[in-house]
Amino acid sequence: MRVGDAIDAHVDRHLEERITELAGLCAIPSVSSEGGDLGSCACAVAATFARRGFDVQIFETAAQPVVYAEKGDGPRSILFYNHYDVQPAEPLELWTSPPFEPSRRDGALFARGAMDDKGEFVSRLAALDAFAATRQTNGLRIKALVEGAEEIGSPGLEPFVRDHAAMLSADACIWEAGGIDTEGRPRIDLGLRGMLYVELHCRTMKRDAHSGDAHALPNAAWRLLRAVASLKDENEHVLVSGFYDSVRPLSAGTKALVERIPPPDPSWAEGLGVRGFVAGREPDALAGAVFSPTCNIAGFTAGYGGPGSKTIIPSQATCKIDFRLVPDQEPDIVARQLRVHLDALGFDDVELAVIGRIFPAMTEPDAPIVKIAIDAAREAWRKEPVVVPMVGGSGPMAYFTGILKLPVVSVGCSFPGSRKHAPDEHVRIDDFAKGAKHVARILSAFATTPAVVSMED
Amino acid sequence: MRVGDAIDAHVDRHLEERITELAGLCAIPSVSSEGGDLGSCACAVAATFARRGFDVQIFETAAQPVVYAEKGDGPRSILFYNHYDVQPAEPLELWTSPPFEPSRRDGALFARGAMDDKGEFVSRLAALDAFAATRQTNGLRIKALVEGAEEIGSPGLEPFVRDHAAMLSADACIWEAGGIDTEGRPRIDLGLRGMLYVELHCRTMKRDAHSGDAHALPNAAWRLLRAVASLKDENEHVLVSGFYDSVRPLSAGTKALVERIPPPDPSWAEGLGVRGFVAGREPDALAGAVFSPTCNIAGFTAGYGGPGSKTIIPSQATCKIDFRLVPDQEPDIVARQLRVHLDALGFDDVELAVIGRIFPAMTEPDAPIVKIAIDAAREAWRKEPVVVPMVGGSGPMAYFTGILKLPVVSVGCSFPGSRKHAPDEHVRIDDFAKGAKHVARILSAFATTPAVVSMED
Repeated sequence: MRVGDAIDAHVDRHLEERITELAGLCAIPSVSSEGGDLGSCACAVAATFARRGFDVQIFETAAQPVVYAEKGDGPRSILFYNHYDVQPAEPLELWTSPPFEPSRRDGALFARGAMDDKGEFVSRLAALDAFAATRQTNGLRIKALVEGAEEIGSPGLEPFVRDHAAMLSADACIWEAGGIDTEGRPRIDLGLRGMLYVELHCRTMKRDAHSGDAHALPNAAWRLLRAVASLKDENEHVLVSGFYDSVRPLSAGTKALVERIPPPDPSWAEGLGVRGFVAGREPDALAGAVFSPTCNIAGFTAGYGGPGSKTIIPSQATCKIDFRLVPDQEPDIVARQLRVHLDALGFDDVELAVIGRIFPAMTEPDAPIVKIAIDAAREAWRKEPVVVPMVGGSGPMAYFTGILKLPVVSVGCSFPGSRKHAPDEHVRIDDFAKGAKHVARILSAFATTPAVVSMED
Repeated sequence: MRVGDAIDAHVDRHLEERITELAGLCAIPSVSSEGGDLGSCACAVAATFARRGFDVQIFETAAQPVVYAEKGDGPRSILFYNHYDVQPAEPLELWTSPPFEPSRRDGALFARGAMDDKGEFVSRLAALDAFAATRQTNGLRIKALVEGAEEIGSPGLEPFVRDHAAMLSADACIWEAGGIDTEGRPRIDLGLRGMLYVELHCRTMKRDAHSGDAHALPNAAWRLLRAVASLKDENEHVLVSGFYDSVRPLSAGTKALVERIPPPDPSWAEGLGVRGFVAGREPDALAGAVFSPTCNIAGFTAGYGGPGSKTIIPSQATCKIDFRLVPDQEPDIVARQLRVHLDALGFDDVELAVIGRIFPAMTEPDAPIVKIAIDAAREAWRKEPVVVPMVGGSGPMAYFTGILKLPVVSVGCSFPGSRKHAPDEHVRIDDFAKGAKHVARILSAFATTPAVVSMED
């Protein structure tokens, strides 16, 4: 029997047990933003590893506990990154079945976290089981980090990774989430953009004034609007001096991958009622446009926003902006450039507060784990995979690519209709199984591929 | 005994009775925006006229009832405009004594409406009494319109004035409010700016999207911000084509008055914590700047305004803007120009809703009532008056200057610390008396001045 067939048989044979295991985790309301039942969820996660013979530790951090598990030995090691916390379930009335009472129907399991990220996590447990049952290898050291604060921005994770760099060292990392696109093609993501999230605040008077004095008294909304308008031109080009200086040119390998990414399914823009993309971009230009860092107004609030009219000159205005950054932009440097930009235009009274900073992360496509993941995807999903060098969102991946110097790939078992973060979140059982088969193949191939000797000039 | 002395003696002798009459009106919570006790307040106002021998009518309108009273005859007539409705009293906890339980202390009467406009109104009743007791004239026809919806924008007043133009015809009109400045100088105001209040609304998607897609999906906040930024340059010049076309050049008389207006008391800007006026205007330029129509952002609302961060692309944005207009700008024409401006710049998807329109109004300083009001002010207040051809705010004065073709002057008994619309609103008893003496002198002089024969080419 070929290894792949043995993997498939093992996953299928134990599928019901794994769905039961997943349902058990989903019944725990581990909502990190509400300080929910995180401790007992960490213990339940630790127990899943203990049942499989892993050494398990639970580390307290500045935020929620981190579960760390390790098993096996050999010349190579691989690190899994997942999280056991979930988004809030509200609005509850939009759920067909209660979010923390997992419900199986239509070939899927419905619950908050059934996909993000407990579904991914248990699918990987299924892969670990299949790998353990079938491997014929030189040995592989499996490491798994499962944190409890991903949905609130992973506070505490950076120092944890720094303090445990030796423990977490590996040859590659498999990221928390991934899956298939609208055509059923498996996606392999290699990067996440960074982010600088700032709040700009302007105050021109101690209190709002009557707008009959608008010819005399300074309007905070107008002032902040002008400051914000200066940040970007109509072609989405950010006008902050130095902003693009450290943008890394794309490698030939990355460029070749970008060219092969299909345009987004038209149903995406149609579903949102979008008539055109920003700066007149065509659908087939969007895969490349993700390498254009963005300057996005997430909120602008000034003066009166209720019904009807109120005739005031607003004394205060606030704008929240997120910049999505690409390698090798750094959030702290962009924040300084932004301050210099505002000062140079005379907006030194506009206060700037940094309320979020994430470094961009990208794995080059020539890393051995990438080819392994592609070959395994082709076998497990029986479709040609789409490799995406960079996706638009952000996450704490840079702690792993940066501090730990790991190549990282995102693979998984979600599909575009999984309703992550939304009511009726679910995982399709068949995807769950295929995702497990994919990951088990990656482990098997990774364990048997000759170790790459690192060479430095 | 000179007429002025007789007026003063009468006002002083009956002052306590008038304060009691005022307190009676202030005890009625006639808050128009809450649909409060308007009917009984209209009746109480009608009763004040009936006690004085006026013919009184109460007219139902689309909004609150209008009280109309008339007395006397002769070759000349004068119309008073006042209102019996008041602003809401909230926040109640900031009142030293309850807003609808008039309280006398520190030489003043405290209550909601004690100044605006019941205080002004009863001060005029005191003037009517003194005029009736002392006049030696050819006769004067007194007309008084007291509406009940001024604080909610006078809906229903325009058709009422149109439908009763003959009844309301007069030689001049005395406006609802006025008073003294921080130096105790009586102010005589001759005009109010008009207003166009619009709401601009932009929608780019059916719902907010994740800001990781900001390189692709259109941001409503950015789009509306650009549309609004196009309306005005940094020198306060409105860029809407045709906006200034119908601005009437100032007459020599108006210019001369503007030059004589003292700059605002420095305590005004200091109290607001204002470091500089708009467009770098100097304090002594502000009296003239009121003739520059404004484009004021009263509110801008888009996306997330709560604490911390939310990473979204806003699908909707709303901006409320009030344009203060000067003669002979018309709100409906400006609204059309604004639509053309937006369309020409490609913002045809930005919706424009007109939610308020008021015509500007201004009386030329050569109208006989102006000189009469100046001379009377000098005598009553014993200070040189300040004549202000135009103030920054707006009101329904244009129904009287426009439809009825009346010269209108604003005189009254408030002072800058009266706290109109705010907790602890009050009228100082001494100002109340001086305001009555001022108005009684105007009536006396107006009744004895030879009628001006109107000449038309």
